[in-house]
Amino acid sequence: MTHSDLLDRYAQLIVRSGVNIKPGQELVMTAPVDAIPLVRLITEHAYKAGASLVTTLYGDDSATLARFKHAPDASFDKATGWLFDGMANAFKAGAARLAIIGDDPSLLAGQDTDKVARANRARSKAYRPALELITSFSVNWSLAAAATPAWARSVFPDKKPEAALDALWQAIFSCSRADTPDPVAAWAEHSRNLRQRTDFLNARRYSALKYKGPGTDFTLGLVDGHVWKGGGSLAQNGVTCNPNIPTEEVFTMPHKDRVDGTVSATKPLSYQGTFIDGIRVRFEKGRIVEAHADKGGDVFANMIGTDEGAARLGEVALVPHSSPIAKSGIVFNNTLFDENAASHIAVGQSYSDTVANGTSLGKEALAKAGANQSLIHVDWMIGSAALDIDGVHADGTAEPLMRKGEWAA
Amino acid sequence: MTHSDLLDRYAQLIVRSGVNIKPGQELVMTAPVDAIPLVRLITEHAYKAGASLVTTLYGDDSATLARFKHAPDASFDKATGWLFDGMANAFKAGAARLAIIGDDPSLLAGQDTDKVARANRARSKAYRPALELITSFSVNWSLAAAATPAWARSVFPDKKPEAALDALWQAIFSCSRADTPDPVAAWAEHSRNLRQRTDFLNARRYSALKYKGPGTDFTLGLVDGHVWKGGGSLAQNGVTCNPNIPTEEVFTMPHKDRVDGTVSATKPLSYQGTFIDGIRVRFEKGRIVEAHADKGGDVFANMIGTDEGAARLGEVALVPHSSPIAKSGIVFNNTLFDENAASHIAVGQSYSDTVANGTSLGKEALAKAGANQSLIHVDWMIGSAALDIDGVHADGTAEPLMRKGEWAA
Repeated sequence: MTHSDLLDRYAQLIVRSGVNIKPGQELVMTAPVDAIPLVRLITEHAYKAGASLVTTLYGDDSATLARFKHAPDASFDKATGWLFDGMANAFKAGAARLAIIGDDPSLLAGQDTDKVARANRARSKAYRPALELITSFSVNWSLAAAATPAWARSVFPDKKPEAALDALWQAIFSCSRADTPDPVAAWAEHSRNLRQRTDFLNARRYSALKYKGPGTDFTLGLVDGHVWKGGGSLAQNGVTCNPNIPTEEVFTMPHKDRVDGTVSATKPLSYQGTFIDGIRVRFEKGRIVEAHADKGGDVFANMIGTDEGAARLGEVALVPHSSPIAKSGIVFNNTLFDENAASHIAVGQSYSDTVANGTSLGKEALAKAGANQSLIHVDWMIGSAALDIDGVHADGTAEPLMRKGEWAA
Repeated sequence: MTHSDLLDRYAQLIVRSGVNIKPGQELVMTAPVDAIPLVRLITEHAYKAGASLVTTLYGDDSATLARFKHAPDASFDKATGWLFDGMANAFKAGAARLAIIGDDPSLLAGQDTDKVARANRARSKAYRPALELITSFSVNWSLAAAATPAWARSVFPDKKPEAALDALWQAIFSCSRADTPDPVAAWAEHSRNLRQRTDFLNARRYSALKYKGPGTDFTLGLVDGHVWKGGGSLAQNGVTCNPNIPTEEVFTMPHKDRVDGTVSATKPLSYQGTFIDGIRVRFEKGRIVEAHADKGGDVFANMIGTDEGAARLGEVALVPHSSPIAKSGIVFNNTLFDENAASHIAVGQSYSDTVANGTSLGKEALAKAGANQSLIHVDWMIGSAALDIDGVHADGTAEPLMRKGEWAA
């Protein structure tokens, strides 16, 4: 198939299996300007699927860089609240949400880390009302990728620009199953497989997970009534969407106060334009009390210092080391892909639908149950071919869940 | 100078003489995706001038066309109110406004005129809160152009695409004085010249203007206390901006109930993607009671049927036939340029700052004074080398104001 055929299939997949836009529903999309060709195809397929209005809010890395290079200092405590509030109002009125990402992983390398942290914090705070509607699955939403020149350069530094871009597109199409004869059917089958795994885990009702691997030795408590999720998600508006394209993970809610021990990251993390590598942290009673990174330590420290919940876990996810994305051997420098190549954890905001009746509980009841709350939600990868995980029951008995990075049960 | 030098000067001119962004002020820009190179330069210069945040909301003709081709019927009564309300909130919080336009004049040619009318109406209604903040000069704002391939094709249909685009850019730079050695100084001098003309007209205190030309014979009453404006405008936030780049007009407020007679357009009008040519209307007591257009008559009828104020005048503007834009001999198929090549009138919303104390009067007091209100504001050109205009005093005495399209006083 030609690139444009694949791009068209991929756009259809995003509209149908990803966000699953419903007739009469509005769609609010964000995307980098480098993704215009993909956005145009998505727009066309969304209207064909019955979308009432499709609006794309484009971002431009050049504009972001111009801000860091030239804006006055006070700029970095500001954010476009008027726009984020507008998005929240759109979601409240029923609009679906689609985010197309293609971030340059090192866009802000070399910029003042204090300014980066302040800008991120101001943005997170202003975006919170909109983000809460997303994390609570108030509406159907999805996150998918577009290859961009800067991202492709970081993934394939030895290739020429065009070849790198082409290779990244191929990897995206392949990881997203867009290159299969019937991508929508392939996603339905993949979702069924993930569902079998979540059914198994939900039946086990573990109280905690116990991790052992190089530089990792920690226990992670699970919230009572936690629900394992994977593949499709049923949003509160009754629409089933696939929030991540691709996805290989099953995930649930850790208890914000019941995490203890040391954990080391197994892949670098690109956080809002800065690489953070060699993360190693120690938890006590759910909170990170010691944090180290070989590279990007300042940014990491600022990140987990965003608020109280930024130093506690909001998500735990399991991915076998044999996942197709891991097998590709590519380090994508992008969480959407790398998190599906390895088991991972996320600090920050929890997903309220990963605990029974969570989306109808208030904030206080959720917090009491052990659900974490924060302005941020950042995943980082801790899985490898050397990681063992036990499932621990309430009575303390443990059983092998993963061995050498693969399912053992 | 190279194209990129000129583009950079033009961007600076827009930031400094156009919107005149103030240190610490936020900037909300709208632009077509074809204008990305200009938008990037504007963003850079705005930050250098002290802008706190620059946000660009990009539009894409392809997305608009996809809607008209594929969206369900109910789409055409919808608009992105959440986004327009967000913009209004930004202006209320002090953000400046910049619109970069580069419309394909015949984008919607061939689309269902009923859908076009409904979509325009829904959009105008949803945009009204934001538009009112602009027309009342609540904040500093400006409107400037970027050459786009589709627009260039319509202006220079006989040139090859690249040559057409280049010719349109040259025309934009030239009409905007961006190709002079010091564009900002050239604008200051130009503004002083326009100010001399408005001072003269304001001292005359005409009660009405009387137009005579081919197909045109009508009298247009001016609101008591009307104020002629031209060049720079002092916004309510204390910032002087140039709302239009380019501008050659002086303009004021007609009385919504005191226009009588027949008027014929002298240039085609491109209204939201449709050409309207050969407009000829008859006014009675301020209202259009007969309307005809050789081409696009349906769209024109829908336009003036938007609401009560859409069939009455909100602005009258005088431009000598020797204006640099007229002398270029180019028909731009774009009101921003064509209105500065000929005297014109506008149906719809009036500018409250074109009557004494207008920005502090309420809606009712403004209406009582004769100020028109509408969801729309659409200019069309009635000036030519054959147009004579008299200024009429309250006692009925008349004196020559323009003869054969040139100032006679």
